[in-house]
Amino acid sequence: MKFRLFFLLIFIVQLSTYAQKTARELGIKTGVMPVGATNTIVDVKGVKVGHTTRIKGDSIRTGVTAILPHGGNIFQDKVPAAVFVGNGFGKLAGTTQINELGNIETPIILTNTLNVATGIDAVIKYTLNLPGNENVRSVNAIVGETNDGYLNDIRGQHVSTSDVISAIKNASTDKPKQGNVGAGTGTICFGYKGGIGTSSRKLPENLGGYTVGVLVQSNFGGVLDIGGVNMGEKLKNFAFSDELQNNVDGSCMIVVATDAPLTNRNLERLAKRAFMGLAQTGGIASNGSGDYIIAFSTAEEVRIPYQTKEIYKTESVPNDWMSPLFMAANEATEEAIINSLFMAEDMTGYDGHTIKKLPVEKVLSILKVQGVLEE
Amino acid sequence: MKFRLFFLLIFIVQLSTYAQKTARELGIKTGVMPVGATNTIVDVKGVKVGHTTRIKGDSIRTGVTAILPHGGNIFQDKVPAAVFVGNGFGKLAGTTQINELGNIETPIILTNTLNVATGIDAVIKYTLNLPGNENVRSVNAIVGETNDGYLNDIRGQHVSTSDVISAIKNASTDKPKQGNVGAGTGTICFGYKGGIGTSSRKLPENLGGYTVGVLVQSNFGGVLDIGGVNMGEKLKNFAFSDELQNNVDGSCMIVVATDAPLTNRNLERLAKRAFMGLAQTGGIASNGSGDYIIAFSTAEEVRIPYQTKEIYKTESVPNDWMSPLFMAANEATEEAIINSLFMAEDMTGYDGHTIKKLPVEKVLSILKVQGVLEE
Amino acid sequence: MKFRLFFLLIFIVQLSTYAQKTARELGIKTGVMPVGATNTIVDVKGVKVGHTTRIKGDSIRTGVTAILPHGGNIFQDKVPAAVFVGNGFGKLAGTTQINELGNIETPIILTNTLNVATGIDAVIKYTLNLPGNENVRSVNAIVGETNDGYLNDIRGQHVSTSDVISAIKNASTDKPKQGNVGAGTGTICFGYKGGIGTSSRKLPENLGGYTVGVLVQSNFGGVLDIGGVNMGEKLKNFAFSDELQNNVDGSCMIVVATDAPLTNRNLERLAKRAFMGLAQTGGIASNGSGDYIIAFSTAEEVRIPYQTKEIYKTESVPNDWMSPLFMAANEATEEAIINSLFMAEDMTGYDGHTIKKLPVEKVLSILKVQGVLEE
Amino acid sequence: MKFRLFFLLIFIVQLSTYAQKTARELGIKTGVMPVGATNTIVDVKGVKVGHTTRIKGDSIRTGVTAILPHGGNIFQDKVPAAVFVGNGFGKLAGTTQINELGNIETPIILTNTLNVATGIDAVIKYTLNLPGNENVRSVNAIVGETNDGYLNDIRGQHVSTSDVISAIKNASTDKPKQGNVGAGTGTICFGYKGGIGTSSRKLPENLGGYTVGVLVQSNFGGVLDIGGVNMGEKLKNFAFSDELQNNVDGSCMIVVATDAPLTNRNLERLAKRAFMGLAQTGGIASNGSGDYIIAFSTAEEVRIPYQTKEIYKTESVPNDWMSPLFMAANEATEEAIINSLFMAEDMTGYDGHTIKKLPVEKVLSILKVQGVLEE
Repeated sequence: MKFRLFFLLIFIVQLSTYAQKTARELGIKTGVMPVGATNTIVDVKGVKVGHTTRIKGDSIRTGVTAILPHGGNIFQDKVPAAVFVGNGFGKLAGTTQINELGNIETPIILTNTLNVATGIDAVIKYTLNLPGNENVRSVNAIVGETNDGYLNDIRGQHVSTSDVISAIKNASTDKPKQGNVGAGTGTICFGYKGGIGTSSRKLPENLGGYTVGVLVQSNFGGVLDIGGVNMGEKLKNFAFSDELQNNVDGSCMIVVATDAPLTNRNLERLAKRAFMGLAQTGGIASNGSGDYIIAFSTAEEVRIPYQTKEIYKTESVPNDWMSPLFMAANEATEEAIINSLFMAEDMTGYDGHTIKKLPVEKVLSILKVQGVLEE
Repeated sequence: MKFRLFFLLIFIVQLSTYAQKTARELGIKTGVMPVGATNTIVDVKGVKVGHTTRIKGDSIRTGVTAILPHGGNIFQDKVPAAVFVGNGFGKLAGTTQINELGNIETPIILTNTLNVATGIDAVIKYTLNLPGNENVRSVNAIVGETNDGYLNDIRGQHVSTSDVISAIKNASTDKPKQGNVGAGTGTICFGYKGGIGTSSRKLPENLGGYTVGVLVQSNFGGVLDIGGVNMGEKLKNFAFSDELQNNVDGSCMIVVATDAPLTNRNLERLAKRAFMGLAQTGGIASNGSGDYIIAFSTAEEVRIPYQTKEIYKTESVPNDWMSPLFMAANEATEEAIINSLFMAEDMTGYDGHTIKKLPVEKVLSILKVQGVLEE
Repeated sequence: MKFRLFFLLIFIVQLSTYAQKTARELGIKTGVMPVGATNTIVDVKGVKVGHTTRIKGDSIRTGVTAILPHGGNIFQDKVPAAVFVGNGFGKLAGTTQINELGNIETPIILTNTLNVATGIDAVIKYTLNLPGNENVRSVNAIVGETNDGYLNDIRGQHVSTSDVISAIKNASTDKPKQGNVGAGTGTICFGYKGGIGTSSRKLPENLGGYTVGVLVQSNFGGVLDIGGVNMGEKLKNFAFSDELQNNVDGSCMIVVATDAPLTNRNLERLAKRAFMGLAQTGGIASNGSGDYIIAFSTAEEVRIPYQTKEIYKTESVPNDWMSPLFMAANEATEEAIINSLFMAEDMTGYDGHTIKKLPVEKVLSILKVQGVLEE
Repeated sequence: MKFRLFFLLIFIVQLSTYAQKTARELGIKTGVMPVGATNTIVDVKGVKVGHTTRIKGDSIRTGVTAILPHGGNIFQDKVPAAVFVGNGFGKLAGTTQINELGNIETPIILTNTLNVATGIDAVIKYTLNLPGNENVRSVNAIVGETNDGYLNDIRGQHVSTSDVISAIKNASTDKPKQGNVGAGTGTICFGYKGGIGTSSRKLPENLGGYTVGVLVQSNFGGVLDIGGVNMGEKLKNFAFSDELQNNVDGSCMIVVATDAPLTNRNLERLAKRAFMGLAQTGGIASNGSGDYIIAFSTAEEVRIPYQTKEIYKTESVPNDWMSPLFMAANEATEEAIINSLFMAEDMTGYDGHTIKKLPVEKVLSILKVQGVLEE
């Protein structure tokens, strides 16, 4: 009996594995720029991603996703960064210091709205305890969130400090999981199950050769556009399409990494282009949305030594060479969001609420009719 | 002889009239919200638009477009307004005062980059000379621009003070001309002839019943998307598609009008959604782009009496009711930009440069193949 | 024996009470505007302040200060607010949502740098548990901090959730304590013991009659100016005055309350004037400073009903009537900071560190010599 | 007869020369940092200042001041820069592009409110005509203003293009004139004659050894503070001191130059500290004030080659070494404003209006009584 159940589970997992494909694996192309080797944020060398997924009982459907710009002591070896606020109905911790000093000094944590404090405290404890940080007395924790309160018992605040630290410690440079994992476990996007999505672009050498990687926690609404097709309308599921006014609010956390050596000013501009990518998916940045983009550079040649009081040298990309990077961030964000939908699965959670995944077969068939996909 | 030429001209004009149709008139739908009566910015009651088109000899291809929030003395009867800067490589005059005081006090002028001063000076003279303004000693002129220097002898600064005043004085509540007129006379968009475009949305009564109108001066690049189809790629004409790296830079001025009573904070948020509409057309806000959005409300119930030192009452739309307006601004901007392409025509100008209009027939045929348009 | 000690303590406390006088009580006038009844933030009707002071053993010298805009359910009855960032090397939680939506929905909590998460979590729990908030799933906690790590074992994170909730629950409309209390227990200002300070202004009726109250948590450096006298230099204790470069960094949290009905745009402008008040004390907003100002209005006529989707009426102060309020915020901030010094006392704490209070007698005598105080 | 007049004039000029002394020359010290060699903005090597003063007949009292970051082709050799808006009731042209691209590409022009367009147009013409700029088709002119309309027939717009170009061409590295010259010809400050003022600071070598120079066009109100003494009150002339509510509004343009190699982010922070210097003079940034600070660096090691598409190297000052520069900008701004008062003279102009200069003798005598100046 037990054995049969076990094999059944393996079978289901396999099915699910087969079913879960990114948009590009299914033949849907976004934009015109070439993608990186794995088409994920870890194509930016050194970037690490870790997830803690909290699914328990009927109503816990939440988690944590950690993004690390590099594998070292980030506090001692800060990286240039910037934040752009698309719509500020959200609680992203750390914003003002990032934009004042132009850098980040901790992992970036994504989680649910009511566990941001848990994220901050965990990042502080993690940072205080790192070797070399014995005298650190100030930590600017970067913790973003979206609200998974429809599928998750969010008021229960089920993410713990150790969940956060676990996501940081398990972070790796392997291709990250997408869909219902980590901070995307309980999120909803365009009326379907959203979650974690990621994508990347690798510029041709004549445009700089840099890589831009994006990871999103998708949890918002609007009028879904896939491969250029107004899917929201075709699927009769879009913002303000009914009296219930579902599928409107929500948020999107977007993390943009690049190996291009960028100053924080140009990183802020890059972040703004990721917001344009969100627009391209049909997102509307509704009133209730917390749409934030954090962009950072992993390039060592723009890092400033900690507490230095001497002139420092940097090498960076000039304004006049930014446009290809802008385009890459725009495209990778659009594709990362679409991937979050394709990689998610049905989820039932809090109070018996169920959210279906994107009807992939139907979507593909519409795309074929529309000539976007070949039959 | 003379007569024949006359009829020939009439014939040409008619041809051109027939050829010039907006996207929607050709069956291309953008978004899901209903459009206003004329699908132009003047659907917002009271808004007036005027153009001065300067085409002369081989090399003058420029002009002025004036947008007036109402027909009265705007200085005495200021309207709430806000500016959002998409990408600030541009010279929009008046920005800081708009955002500090939350209003505009002059017509909005659009022209070419090197005639912004002419625009400012004309607006000042126009304002100083209005009855009732005899004691006015400070005027915050709102003058935006894009660079028409490929088709126009821009260094010649061919716009005059009287050109600007003429555009203001001729402004009317009639449906405005689009394409190669006014400030759009010499602009280029996605590698094709751009220009002035406009569109509007009228919210259903259950979503507030407000109208949002948008007018653009399009002059930018990227990867053109029409009706969801990646037209840039299909037409083999998109940013970074060749070594020449044409079709990248440029700018877009966007004016958003609404009769919804909005405070300047919510107008700034509305402006940001117009930037999302630009993103939906495939614009990338390249480094060299000056992408600015000015949003204003014509509603009398949010106007603050001039120089009042008493508490004033306003009535305005709360945050929680903004999302339908956001969606309307997003959609109308996308459609206004697309219209600027459909309504433009071939133009030859400065230094023998020629820019072709969008190949409308080809575009329509692609849209039919893609199932976006019915055959 | 025990009794004698007891009376001795009473005697000391009394001495200390007598010693503790505000600048104004000692005859030092700041600015030209009249002060409110108690010269504290609670002169703004309805505002409540609560402190939790954590002094324990050798090394715990920290605490919490809570400021409530009114005594009701703040989440249900939000108040207009804005934040201005003087220098963003700080962790003020809640900033982006305040500026996006223009309001605050929780008490404002001040504490130490490494306990911001504790503050957020406590505010969330407090809010979730209020009657009427049973369905609340998103809370924008406003928690600011300065770094008390010289006198306090800050890495120990000694503020607990109940400390925060206690500060909120004990908050009252009584004249608040100043100096070494609450979030000011372990802070340092201009090289002397800083802490909590407060002051207010009451505009004459012909200038509107409004009250502006300010409360600060002072923890920064520069060149101290008292009553116009360069006290930093006279006391030989100012930024960069020695090789040790003490007395430079640090932060200041400033809370500005007013009963004037202000929109969030004008509240942001008001907040900026409080930063000017900080400048008047000789603060330099050094690189390491987290100087934040949160301004809110208690006026009911500018509150927007929660989740309303209907046009709402407000009555507010027009731009042209703001200047007296600006001046009041400027003056009250300067005086609040000076008061934080006059009201503080010597403190010994973490690692045996001692910070002396301002040498009040010496200061007074200098002010007399300078003719600022009458002899 | 003619001769006698001539000698009389010489005598008057000499008198005036003797009368005109800066605050420091009169023994009034501001702050604690050492000043540069000439205590003016040209202590920053390479910076040039030029004035055109327009005094004609009864009512023309205006002018132009040009500040050049270096003597070369600024368009080809742009310098890092940033703008901070203290209060945005003003028309500073060029702001958004400065902050987007992080640089300036023209001289900085100061003039009167209604001649900003003249300034822009002149800067464009000047730039287009420079050798090497034959293909330039976009110029971001930086033109600031304050309103001299009380003493000057501002509606007459009496500044001409050649006045502006003359100020640019006559600019030199000589110690600039202060008081009633150039853009300061007709301005008013704290109820007295304002104008152009300048000051500088030279950091000690152990704090970096850099120079910070400031030039202001002072035209604002508040409660004047000189040498720490509340002079506004002593002279019974301060904002809101009477029913007339004179001495409130107005503006201040502040230009900060430094040879420290700063990125535009740190220049923006530096600019904010200049605003703190304005606060220290008793300025209140009233509603009607246009208080803008433009900061730039002359250091070659932070310049980015024009239109480069390659990685560029820069060397710059790290965050942790900014505080001494902050202090220098703060102090130099305060002293520059005070100098603008000490160096100005009585002026009669438009409509018979007269503004008296600061009563220097009385001020000095008050400062002596207050012990600020030795007798």
